[in-house]
Amino acid sequence: VVQTTDLDTPFLSVDGDIMERNLHTMAEYADHVLVSTDVSEAIALRPHAKTHKSPRIARRQLELGAVGLTVATVSEAELFADEGCTDLFLAYPIWADGERGLRLRQLADRVSLRVGVDSAEGASMLGTALRGAPAEVVIEIDSGQRRSGVPPENAADIARAVAGTGLTVAGVFTFPGHSYGPGVARQTASDDEAIALRSAAESLRAAGFPSDLRSGGSTPSVATAHRDAVTELRPGVYVFNDAQQVELGVCSWTDVALWAVGTVVSRRGQRFILDTGSKVLGADRPPWVTGFGRLPDHPEARITALSEHHATVEFSDGSPVPKLGSRVRVVPNHVCTAVNLADELVVVSGDDVRERWPVAARGANT
Amino acid sequence: VVQTTDLDTPFLSVDGDIMERNLHTMAEYADHVLVSTDVSEAIALRPHAKTHKSPRIARRQLELGAVGLTVATVSEAELFADEGCTDLFLAYPIWADGERGLRLRQLADRVSLRVGVDSAEGASMLGTALRGAPAEVVIEIDSGQRRSGVPPENAADIARAVAGTGLTVAGVFTFPGHSYGPGVARQTASDDEAIALRSAAESLRAAGFPSDLRSGGSTPSVATAHRDAVTELRPGVYVFNDAQQVELGVCSWTDVALWAVGTVVSRRGQRFILDTGSKVLGADRPPWVTGFGRLPDHPEARITALSEHHATVEFSDGSPVPKLGSRVRVVPNHVCTAVNLADELVVVSGDDVRERWPVAARGANT
Repeated sequence: VVQTTDLDTPFLSVDGDIMERNLHTMAEYADHVLVSTDVSEAIALRPHAKTHKSPRIARRQLELGAVGLTVATVSEAELFADEGCTDLFLAYPIWADGERGLRLRQLADRVSLRVGVDSAEGASMLGTALRGAPAEVVIEIDSGQRRSGVPPENAADIARAVAGTGLTVAGVFTFPGHSYGPGVARQTASDDEAIALRSAAESLRAAGFPSDLRSGGSTPSVATAHRDAVTELRPGVYVFNDAQQVELGVCSWTDVALWAVGTVVSRRGQRFILDTGSKVLGADRPPWVTGFGRLPDHPEARITALSEHHATVEFSDGSPVPKLGSRVRVVPNHVCTAVNLADELVVVSGDDVRERWPVAARGANT
Repeated sequence: VVQTTDLDTPFLSVDGDIMERNLHTMAEYADHVLVSTDVSEAIALRPHAKTHKSPRIARRQLELGAVGLTVATVSEAELFADEGCTDLFLAYPIWADGERGLRLRQLADRVSLRVGVDSAEGASMLGTALRGAPAEVVIEIDSGQRRSGVPPENAADIARAVAGTGLTVAGVFTFPGHSYGPGVARQTASDDEAIALRSAAESLRAAGFPSDLRSGGSTPSVATAHRDAVTELRPGVYVFNDAQQVELGVCSWTDVALWAVGTVVSRRGQRFILDTGSKVLGADRPPWVTGFGRLPDHPEARITALSEHHATVEFSDGSPVPKLGSRVRVVPNHVCTAVNLADELVVVSGDDVRERWPVAARGANT
């Protein structure tokens, strides 16, 4: 058996057992916990595949009951369709021009496809690209992140534009991305998500459109999602978790299934340098986190700076500092961008390398 | 001829003419401007290939007089050696353990190789890996960035450790990374660089070691480098430039040779969303920049937030905002991390696609 110590650092390592537990926990949560007392069906789980970009993990999510996958780009959708996934939601305001329109049409002819939209102009482009295809359109609602999406009260206007092109409206979706914040952010984002989805659905109903699909959810806000407002959840990060989730209090270190393995290449006093730089961890650093990633085996340490091939780690005075040449585990702030930098994930059990999974959709941005 | 409008966004575009001018300007600078009045030789230019990771650009740098390339990792070195580069400097405190030690040895047997070191322990590892090979070792000095490197006064100690393993010391190097800052940062960093390199070189001379190689330089600090202290410059970013360089005042928009091309996929009032997210631009955002990248054709706009596939752009009240579906150019904050996310660079002349260059060393982190 190959050992992790046989591999040159840096690399991304996945604990297969922790990942499997994370997959089960979320699948069971969607199956049981969120079922409304007066609705017989479970909440649908449609995990976002942008986190792992890995067919092997997608298949496991589907085996455990996911209704399909969420993706962000047509090229991600193409990759997972090639790998046998038959139900895909492009949760993004796709601009279906040129070659992308043709690619989208080919997708719609071979899988069950839902596509996001948030403008009449976007609907018109989709109408041209998807004319006669069985695809459905889902209207994006802004529930407070102030990114893409229309205000709930504009949902019916967009639905009319979609219907005018001959396409079918399936319902509404939102991303409560403002769940990524300290304190009550998660509860607030879940409340906002419920209000926005309910209000948009009511606007669709009043205008004679279907509103059974009300899709929401992010890893931090899944636990506080309103069971009577949300019919589908789209978490991504939960597969692996990351330093952001730990610092938000969404999970603990024992729930983190992915880390970079780095080597201490330089040291001076209480400061040392790991070879896990921004080209390995990604440079995501929202203002509320405490550094550029975390060291789960040294929770008191902080990554105070990140260059492309240097993570500068500071220990408080008196703490024992890892020796030069030591291998240290580093959990990225944002696992989705870290995975997208790697060609493969090294799946381990303890120090044994069990498998190596390609990040097949790495760089699939178009 | 393929037009850029035939390509789905997002993609990275390089203006071949601007890049060629940037390459010439730096080559001429090293050849002429920096020659000391009392030293007959020019400053050596050894560009850092981590910026472009592209054999085609490396070859052009060498054709224009670069003495060799700088790289950050053994895998980058392997790639450029395979592509015919015969002179490489690994400007990093390489920890030559395990497989990496063997790979380093193979490199040293086929190219002229210099390797960085900043500890006696690292020197010992290099000694074992490179025993009998013609490689040279260069001692890394911390000139004020507080990253890797030893204080100048410790250079001779490290040199003695290197010599004790049987390897040859070539001189000293530093990265004045604190040149990346507003105001007088560049001048300060260049002054610090000169003081550190002179002091370390003096320490080596006094201990009987060579000190002819005094390697420094970063794109922001090249223009203020001290001609009597620095014998070699290692800028990387200058090939393309980026939003950081523009905001630092190092270059102007007309010197920027690389940008992402994105599509306006969503718009509400003075805010719109481009499909050039952090998986295209990278998430680098030092505190002194004004956003997550810049729009050269809309210098008043700011990228106020970045998700994986969304760049949130805000225009001031009253400014004309690009229409939905428009294509917009975005210059990343840090071009090195943006290039490392792409599989290829689309080389353009106006709207014509001239060539497509693979980012051959993308992800080469080990």
